[in-house]
Amino acid sequence: MNPLNQFRIVLVEPINGGNIGSICRVMNNCGITDLTIVKPLDTINWNDAKKLACNAQEQLDNIKFFKSLPESIAECTVIAGTSARTGFYRDTAITPSEFAPLGLTSANNSHKVALVFGREDKGLFNDELALCTHIIHIPTSPIYSSINLSHAVMLCCYEIFRKNGSFNLPTEKVDEANSDLRERMFDLWRQMMIETEFTHEQKVDHMMMGLRRIFSRGKLTIPDTKILMGLARQSLWVVSEWNKAKKINK
Amino acid sequence: MNPLNQFRIVLVEPINGGNIGSICRVMNNCGITDLTIVKPLDTINWNDAKKLACNAQEQLDNIKFFKSLPESIAECTVIAGTSARTGFYRDTAITPSEFAPLGLTSANNSHKVALVFGREDKGLFNDELALCTHIIHIPTSPIYSSINLSHAVMLCCYEIFRKNGSFNLPTEKVDEANSDLRERMFDLWRQMMIETEFTHEQKVDHMMMGLRRIFSRGKLTIPDTKILMGLARQSLWVVSEWNKAKKINK
Repeated sequence: MNPLNQFRIVLVEPINGGNIGSICRVMNNCGITDLTIVKPLDTINWNDAKKLACNAQEQLDNIKFFKSLPESIAECTVIAGTSARTGFYRDTAITPSEFAPLGLTSANNSHKVALVFGREDKGLFNDELALCTHIIHIPTSPIYSSINLSHAVMLCCYEIFRKNGSFNLPTEKVDEANSDLRERMFDLWRQMMIETEFTHEQKVDHMMMGLRRIFSRGKLTIPDTKILMGLARQSLWVVSEWNKAKKINK
Repeated sequence: MNPLNQFRIVLVEPINGGNIGSICRVMNNCGITDLTIVKPLDTINWNDAKKLACNAQEQLDNIKFFKSLPESIAECTVIAGTSARTGFYRDTAITPSEFAPLGLTSANNSHKVALVFGREDKGLFNDELALCTHIIHIPTSPIYSSINLSHAVMLCCYEIFRKNGSFNLPTEKVDEANSDLRERMFDLWRQMMIETEFTHEQKVDHMMMGLRRIFSRGKLTIPDTKILMGLARQSLWVVSEWNKAKKINK
């Protein structure tokens, strides 16, 4: 069972069609597909919704509509309402990242979990928040505290998606260079520094310490090390050619 | 010094004016104010930008414009390019939440940190990514992996804002009830359960264990406990009135 399928996004009286479309897209970005609208307004511009949904048209077609919030969340156990304001028990609010593990625990127990978002202008009313088991408050800067609806949905869904751990970054197959290979590389660089007359025998050890620090700051893979060895060999070849040319010129 | 002031958002050839406006808003939501556009197209709809920026008009007016990416990031030390694709060293990518502490470390050392975002359709080109010290890849669901530009910026900025820890949720002043008060409340409830004939003396202890579990699942504040005590006292008062009425009726 995929716990993300237990999550339902509930929009109460959303005003802006573009936001609805954007929300379809961001939900799908986060692997969540249950979208419900309570009391849809006649004035919603569904062309805007279509445009902003981009390739999430299927999500747009699968929106469920309800006449009241209680009906839309009837089968849910955990119900999280979002609020930007304070007061009326809103001071018990938690952040999206704090909510994510709570919601996922219920979802993993096959319970339906609702995330409820209010109107763009007025949010959720007190009687609507009263139906919620949790209140989510998204941290914002005092510079501008009001978040666009689709961005608020994105942050909540993203935290759930991320905490669910279903995503793995494509990782580099790191064939890390072992000490033997690294030391052969450093030997070549040491030789190059002397033969190109970049530095003297007396100073080369000090210089090598610097180089070792530079190359040890991150992981060195086998291909990385071979590039560095090739580069040093090439310089050494140039030196030998230069020496030959000098002999001929004499 | 506020480390958030060290962060610069760089958009390379953005196409959509609405996205630019949205980005102004989400940056300000996260307390970041340095927005730079590289090679702005003549076709950008600045009215859309204005509309979507909402109350972030000042941010919109303060956008800096550059003719090339190298110029726009010249003074930055850490430069993170975002990419949704894989290949060309992109497999060394990290997530926004992994990048946030790295970026903040440099910012706290008074270094400028750039986050570079590519075109809506084509992202950043290889020669542009080559200028970056880090590559950020935002985790997404296989259901729909392409994220809208403003939502991508939001996630990256939000992680930085959140990790910077400058935000504190309004917390409830929790005057938690101590054991003495809680036990007085439980005594009243016990008495109420017996006197209202809800349960018998023999079963009341079992019932009380259930009640204790219910009331201990979350924190009980002093006001919470006093409400519960008042409620029990009221029931006990009703019982005594009922008993009086029964006596009169006899």
